[in-house]
Amino acid sequence: MLSSSQSQQVITCRAAVAWGKGEELVIEEVEVSPPQSQEIRIKVVSTSLCRSDISALDSQPIFPRIFGHEASGIVESVGSEVTEFKKGDHVLTLFTGECRTCSHCTSGKSNICQVLGLERKGLMHSDQGTRFSVKGKPIYHYCAVSSFSEFTVVHSGCAVKVNASAPLEKICLLSCGAAAGMGAVWNVANVLEGSKVVIFGLGTVGLSVAQAAKLRGASHIIGVDINSAKCDKAKAFGVTQFINPNECSEPVQQVIKRITDGGADYAFECIGDTGMVTTALQSCCDGWGLTVTLGVPKVKPEVSAHYALLLTGRTLKGCLFGGWKPKSDLPSLVDMYMKKEIQIDEFITHNLQFEDINEALNLMREGKCLRCVIHMPK
Amino acid sequence: MLSSSQSQQVITCRAAVAWGKGEELVIEEVEVSPPQSQEIRIKVVSTSLCRSDISALDSQPIFPRIFGHEASGIVESVGSEVTEFKKGDHVLTLFTGECRTCSHCTSGKSNICQVLGLERKGLMHSDQGTRFSVKGKPIYHYCAVSSFSEFTVVHSGCAVKVNASAPLEKICLLSCGAAAGMGAVWNVANVLEGSKVVIFGLGTVGLSVAQAAKLRGASHIIGVDINSAKCDKAKAFGVTQFINPNECSEPVQQVIKRITDGGADYAFECIGDTGMVTTALQSCCDGWGLTVTLGVPKVKPEVSAHYALLLTGRTLKGCLFGGWKPKSDLPSLVDMYMKKEIQIDEFITHNLQFEDINEALNLMREGKCLRCVIHMPK
Repeated sequence: MLSSSQSQQVITCRAAVAWGKGEELVIEEVEVSPPQSQEIRIKVVSTSLCRSDISALDSQPIFPRIFGHEASGIVESVGSEVTEFKKGDHVLTLFTGECRTCSHCTSGKSNICQVLGLERKGLMHSDQGTRFSVKGKPIYHYCAVSSFSEFTVVHSGCAVKVNASAPLEKICLLSCGAAAGMGAVWNVANVLEGSKVVIFGLGTVGLSVAQAAKLRGASHIIGVDINSAKCDKAKAFGVTQFINPNECSEPVQQVIKRITDGGADYAFECIGDTGMVTTALQSCCDGWGLTVTLGVPKVKPEVSAHYALLLTGRTLKGCLFGGWKPKSDLPSLVDMYMKKEIQIDEFITHNLQFEDINEALNLMREGKCLRCVIHMPK
Repeated sequence: MLSSSQSQQVITCRAAVAWGKGEELVIEEVEVSPPQSQEIRIKVVSTSLCRSDISALDSQPIFPRIFGHEASGIVESVGSEVTEFKKGDHVLTLFTGECRTCSHCTSGKSNICQVLGLERKGLMHSDQGTRFSVKGKPIYHYCAVSSFSEFTVVHSGCAVKVNASAPLEKICLLSCGAAAGMGAVWNVANVLEGSKVVIFGLGTVGLSVAQAAKLRGASHIIGVDINSAKCDKAKAFGVTQFINPNECSEPVQQVIKRITDGGADYAFECIGDTGMVTTALQSCCDGWGLTVTLGVPKVKPEVSAHYALLLTGRTLKGCLFGGWKPKSDLPSLVDMYMKKEIQIDEFITHNLQFEDINEALNLMREGKCLRCVIHMPK
């Protein structure tokens, strides 16, 4: 039964559709269904491109699909059971949701919601269906967000209301990469003052790790990247020593062990290279060395390490979204940004219009950007 | 310059010498040098056989060698600079030592002594030499202990004085396996009351984990072993559910996930099978599941795991000797035993005379024992 209210109507708008593996995105007219009872429909304001979008585009078999999972927007309409949001609210999307009622959400020790956690099939949590179509053909979602569209529908547990005075075109970065890096330092590793930190991969996530480690008063923040052009920016974010492994005459873990007099207290793998996880463990000290993995592997999914690295007291710990409980914790991170306690503007190397979204993909593929913010039409 | 004092004299006694990989031990007359300045010479009273002795005998290329690293004894003589021990003191040997002055010993967060840690070359820490010979031919040490000898020489940092009223023929077990299992639960994992624990491998180490988890009030203590004969003993040590993977119609990690409603809070790998570390991680819950590795691998030294197990919040942590600082912590563990707060007698399935040491090796190879205590001649 159709109602005349806006929330019950299909919206036709433009979205960047991925029709096949590794292909350029095509801007299409899409139909966006009304939100179901526990969902909200959002007018996307800004969406920044994260490496995971490209990894999924290049590897997963789910097509046609609308990517994008790091985004900000304004609530356009809400489902019949939604009381938490109303039209006009400013929100960040959450690629991993928080239901607030499952055993994990209520455990006080997990951010892996058992109801609205990472969605891998390209479908909505509510009914395993899609809310997009092109001429009647269903279009799959990505991480239950799909922000490369003027309008999108998300579960109400997969968005969070934020301070309406915060600039949406900046804080979209906090809905994934920038927050993930900071959380890994503060929530997962709990880096202590005066400690020695090494970071593998100096993209947005790695530089967020650097920033957070600096705020904790780490004495050494060693940044490792094969792109030496990243050195200056890295130092601006707190990296005290930059190492390009390709310019070293010995394995990078040996260089790090020497600089740190035995190994780092904490290593962060921010590349998504499982081989580098092994190097990270080798770069940590005996006894209490902790390696935290943040990256999502692009190629080999198996992490491996010689048992002796563990026997001598190392720990390997993974995390999703830096251990943040997204709905509970993100608003305060936005507030920290507003108080200038954390930097995120400096991650934005490019601002692009929606029509130029493929340029953002190219820039990231070529390692020429940190974050490209894609501004949706007003 | 020779002195007439006993401490300066070579002792000739009997030791079980390993002449080649995997070979039976041969009881030989050996010469035992006097202790050097920071060393002590010990009359071994009891030495229990640990699986690691056999793994090293079967795999390492260092021969001839005297194995044995889980032992108790009485100090026979001390080096010129040793003030901590005197003749007649009752001691446990330490296969991983504690110098009490290095950066790790003083860190408050590591038991991996940088000076007297695990010795892998068969030599003494002091001078990289040996203290044993057979007719002038040097015999290598094992873990800087070599307790399969009537007398042995150890660094003073590789032994600890204990309550003289404690029965040496029992407490030798606390110098390795039994303590390692308990420490993994209390020091490394810090198992909480009401939590769900799974243990892979129900030898002495695994059963010590069970005992310690029971003392912490774990609600589920699931024991996994391919030898169903271990079931009754396991239950006596606190195991609440026994699983023989060979008798399951589905992978054991699936059985565990079902029993625990999503996975164990803690998994302990006590076999020394790196493949089982992967299974242990898979048996843990998302969000906070912790796998602790205790075993020393007998075959494949590489641990591997799919990155997604980490991404969803699992932690893999290794430890040596259960995280105990051996010299600082072992005396209080002996005291706990004396107060009957912990059980160790029940691990002793066989008592053998020194002459029958090869029978102990056979029993362990055949999985027919927990601990064989070898009683040295009085």
